[in-house]
Amino acid sequence: MKSLGVQLIVELYGCDRSLLDDPTHSERILVDAINGSGATVIQPFFHHFSPHGVSGVVVIAESHVAIHTWPEYAYCALDIFTCGSQVKPELILDHIRSEFRAKEVSVMEVKRGTLIVPPHTLFHKPMESTTPA
Amino acid sequence: MKSLGVQLIVELYGCDRSLLDDPTHSERILVDAINGSGATVIQPFFHHFSPHGVSGVVVIAESHVAIHTWPEYAYCALDIFTCGSQVKPELILDHIRSEFRAKEVSVMEVKRGTLIVPPHTLFHKPMESTTPA
Repeated sequence: MKSLGVQLIVELYGCDRSLLDDPTHSERILVDAINGSGATVIQPFFHHFSPHGVSGVVVIAESHVAIHTWPEYAYCALDIFTCGSQVKPELILDHIRSEFRAKEVSVMEVKRGTLIVPPHTLFHKPMESTTPA
Repeated sequence: MKSLGVQLIVELYGCDRSLLDDPTHSERILVDAINGSGATVIQPFFHHFSPHGVSGVVVIAESHVAIHTWPEYAYCALDIFTCGSQVKPELILDHIRSEFRAKEVSVMEVKRGTLIVPPHTLFHKPMESTTPA
């Protein structure tokens, strides 16, 4: 079943609380994970909440990676949404999970944009002008 | 079952193709939807792809709203992630669905951060110092 994109919906438990509360470090972890996977960062934005917690989103050429952290519960919610066949979202997840030192992980994988069109006409974004999906 | 947040994973089909390819208009639709729901915009970022397609994310105080559009398929992938009990993500979805004139919609609702802690200790972000979840 062909789709335009795939999304990993990830729960990370038992993470390092100080890292979860550090927007600069969190941004570096996500950006390094994205770069290491071969995906392309377009724009990161990270926000630190008072008294604690971080929300961060990195728009990438292949869609986005988002994180919301609750340091008080050593927990963060992570979304990794990629399109195209070049980038493996699992690589992004592996790096982030490892860097935040998560003790438990839950992952749900969802196909996005499963269109009823002839497979050879299904192109990803950014446009893969010569590579059918 | 108590959770820190709820996420609507939405597929919108049969949308207005010209709106899907307009980052300025798409941003206005999402920001209006968020403001109309009582949620608080922190930072929007929208990117237009060549030759077509938009990726947009709005970080909100209650988490985020993200959209990725494929005008060539009249389709967009939408994520609405909110935490706390004040904001109803369905209100955000209703506005966006209506504005993009989607003919078909698929919605999956996912609870995020279902922690095994006593309910009276489960607080949302931003901190609801007096309101247990």
